[in-house]
Amino acid sequence: MSNGDVFVGEVIGTAILILFGAGVVAAVVLNYSKAKDAGWIVIAFGWGFGVLAGAYTAAPLSGGHLNPAVTLGIAIDTGDWDQVHLYVAGQMVGAFLGAVLCWLVYYAQFQANADDEIAQPTLGIFSTAPEIRNPVANLITEIIATVGLVLPILAFGLTEGLGQSGTAILIVAFLVVGIGLSLGGPTGYAINPARDLGPRIAHAVLPIPNKGTSDWSYSWIPVAGPLIGGALSGLVFNAAF
Amino acid sequence: MSNGDVFVGEVIGTAILILFGAGVVAAVVLNYSKAKDAGWIVIAFGWGFGVLAGAYTAAPLSGGHLNPAVTLGIAIDTGDWDQVHLYVAGQMVGAFLGAVLCWLVYYAQFQANADDEIAQPTLGIFSTAPEIRNPVANLITEIIATVGLVLPILAFGLTEGLGQSGTAILIVAFLVVGIGLSLGGPTGYAINPARDLGPRIAHAVLPIPNKGTSDWSYSWIPVAGPLIGGALSGLVFNAAF
Amino acid sequence: MSNGDVFVGEVIGTAILILFGAGVVAAVVLNYSKAKDAGWIVIAFGWGFGVLAGAYTAAPLSGGHLNPAVTLGIAIDTGDWDQVHLYVAGQMVGAFLGAVLCWLVYYAQFQANADDEIAQPTLGIFSTAPEIRNPVANLITEIIATVGLVLPILAFGLTEGLGQSGTAILIVAFLVVGIGLSLGGPTGYAINPARDLGPRIAHAVLPIPNKGTSDWSYSWIPVAGPLIGGALSGLVFNAAF
Amino acid sequence: MSNGDVFVGEVIGTAILILFGAGVVAAVVLNYSKAKDAGWIVIAFGWGFGVLAGAYTAAPLSGGHLNPAVTLGIAIDTGDWDQVHLYVAGQMVGAFLGAVLCWLVYYAQFQANADDEIAQPTLGIFSTAPEIRNPVANLITEIIATVGLVLPILAFGLTEGLGQSGTAILIVAFLVVGIGLSLGGPTGYAINPARDLGPRIAHAVLPIPNKGTSDWSYSWIPVAGPLIGGALSGLVFNAAF
Repeated sequence: MSNGDVFVGEVIGTAILILFGAGVVAAVVLNYSKAKDAGWIVIAFGWGFGVLAGAYTAAPLSGGHLNPAVTLGIAIDTGDWDQVHLYVAGQMVGAFLGAVLCWLVYYAQFQANADDEIAQPTLGIFSTAPEIRNPVANLITEIIATVGLVLPILAFGLTEGLGQSGTAILIVAFLVVGIGLSLGGPTGYAINPARDLGPRIAHAVLPIPNKGTSDWSYSWIPVAGPLIGGALSGLVFNAAF
Repeated sequence: MSNGDVFVGEVIGTAILILFGAGVVAAVVLNYSKAKDAGWIVIAFGWGFGVLAGAYTAAPLSGGHLNPAVTLGIAIDTGDWDQVHLYVAGQMVGAFLGAVLCWLVYYAQFQANADDEIAQPTLGIFSTAPEIRNPVANLITEIIATVGLVLPILAFGLTEGLGQSGTAILIVAFLVVGIGLSLGGPTGYAINPARDLGPRIAHAVLPIPNKGTSDWSYSWIPVAGPLIGGALSGLVFNAAF
Repeated sequence: MSNGDVFVGEVIGTAILILFGAGVVAAVVLNYSKAKDAGWIVIAFGWGFGVLAGAYTAAPLSGGHLNPAVTLGIAIDTGDWDQVHLYVAGQMVGAFLGAVLCWLVYYAQFQANADDEIAQPTLGIFSTAPEIRNPVANLITEIIATVGLVLPILAFGLTEGLGQSGTAILIVAFLVVGIGLSLGGPTGYAINPARDLGPRIAHAVLPIPNKGTSDWSYSWIPVAGPLIGGALSGLVFNAAF
Repeated sequence: MSNGDVFVGEVIGTAILILFGAGVVAAVVLNYSKAKDAGWIVIAFGWGFGVLAGAYTAAPLSGGHLNPAVTLGIAIDTGDWDQVHLYVAGQMVGAFLGAVLCWLVYYAQFQANADDEIAQPTLGIFSTAPEIRNPVANLITEIIATVGLVLPILAFGLTEGLGQSGTAILIVAFLVVGIGLSLGGPTGYAINPARDLGPRIAHAVLPIPNKGTSDWSYSWIPVAGPLIGGALSGLVFNAAF
């Protein structure tokens, strides 16, 4: 795949992923949304189908990684590091753009947060935060959850029928739903450095009323944890398969 | 595909789509329904599986667009405008018929709305309405949500295995579930001019007790927004892919 | 397919369908069940995955109709009536057996219904009942909902990739989830004469404490409605496709 | 498949299954989890997508049984018992490891159980328990539910397109969701001896505050029931198909 296609594909695909993913959290937490308080099943399927939408769109151009942890795991598996920087750059730009698109979709709802009576912190729409702040435990959660994502993805590549039937990304989408349902409880399952950092930057710069903190002190965990998890997945895969 | 097949396919397919889609909202909002208050997850999967039912049925005849925004995006992509008017005519007729079928399925429930004590507005079963009435914001929401539908659909066409395995429409159905979950909060995700306008006409003419307004002042947004979004998708697709 | 395979396949497949379908209603309505009050989304997916389990199991033997309305629609489409009686007989026997299996799975819960304080009618686990008792409206609901099942199933047969990828029954399963979500509100979506009548007979004969009425006055509607709907689907399919 | 691959595949795959499956229960029942009280639909899809994640990962090495009841049913069907002990050993080791991984993911939440005010029994995260303690009824529930798993899985092997399209495991995952929704109410659907016994051992040895009993008196039922059900499935399959 050409360098341009890789970059453009990852920008578009990651933007769609974050538009859907940040969107579903906005749908559930913001006031004046039809999906207000619709529950964890909605969050998990919203993120999963965001992967479906973004990865199928990006796939013809870049293969649709949308996640530096996936790109890292594949690079360790294949030994091919030539385009890693293009993937990651596209993912970061796309994640930022997707967060901006989400803000536009929910613009009227975000503006309604100016009402001090009902205003609430908005960072949770953009980035993850732990329920119990414990850096070591949070890091371990993100590492294991990312192995739960990347190791199966690497194994899917050995299931040839999936590629021929065009359904590999569908399986990944349901895998992401499953990670959300099962492993998202403690930290909100970043499992993707770009997914967390790009929208956090967007949160910091967008003019949202009463937006609250962007919580930079936590921001390294959803970057480091997924990268460690992606690397571990590549190593385990090379050893066992 | 012959002109007759295109028209008949779009009529039948769009009627099924709206039967299921309007049906699931009726199921959740009307009194004396077993699914009363069943929540947003039910709404989103109901509409998605309406796409599955309608598009698979229409596909052998017309390809199963069921949506003028999809037809417009495909026409811009391919440059072939010959049957666009037949697609859109079939979609409008089908959407009206589907709304009438939904009214028949829930006839006893709609009649029970004659009880002034529990009567409620019924337009939400047929057509969309925003949570916060802000024409510019509502229009932008519909435009972006429609790009989230049509751009991935155009990209699915490049994923050849999907066509060979017969699963492309399944992926579109889950994509529509995802749009509902993630982007439906502000306006109820028309993302389809026929889906909104056809049932709105049906709402205006059907003899439903205490049916309330058909809200024509808002009706242009769920037509214009999806058409702009469909056109944008075609242009982005031609530029990037 | 041999007569023996058809009969055995339909018995096994329909028994599994009803085991899952009656089972999910038991799970949601009976006391001392972990899924007590789990909601309509659970009901609809439970029945849909019952179709998945039963039809995939029956398919190698009988094609997996599991429903006289489907058998009727296919017979009208193909003009081949030779084995219709074997299909229907297998479906009725299987539906009865499946209801007995459901009773065994929830035996302790059914026995707990002997406690008069918490006892409740149990027919809803086995067979359908309308929210508003209106024979004409109920019949129309069942007819239209069955067309929403059988017409798409007939069209799936024209989508060749589905057969080759083995995913046709998966699509039917999601279609059934959709019918439940969207069209099940008024009558509980029998859409299958065997699904309703077989378990109703089981309800009449099983020794369940405080089981309540088997409601035979309503029982003709979930038989007649689906048969009319299945026949209509065959006629529409032959005319339009 | 080589002995080493079988063992390693089953260890990795079953570990992932239990990580997701125990994880989703932890997510729903533990305090300080974002999915607290998210309901039965979350439990059932979490376990189903755990099967998806674990079985797709194990498939290239071992075929992805992950369950002694499945291994037993296949051995009875094929008459090939050579590697059964390797499968079961791998499944037991993997189930134990998966439970430990779940404990690590929810470490901070498990530690919070030291607060006596909110502490609760934790066995339900690891292993099953009946709502009504009735050994005969509980055993029958587990037997029938396991037949509902293993008999369809054996039949899937006759649906050749599934193998060629790589989607067989996807169908099994939805089947497991369906079993949870429909048949999980009375006993929590072990349907897998390793799934119940491995995590029960982990519960007994892990240093969880206020963890409560490991309930060994019940532990034989979720072992014996699934083994009987798996054997019955193999016998029925050989007789009917």
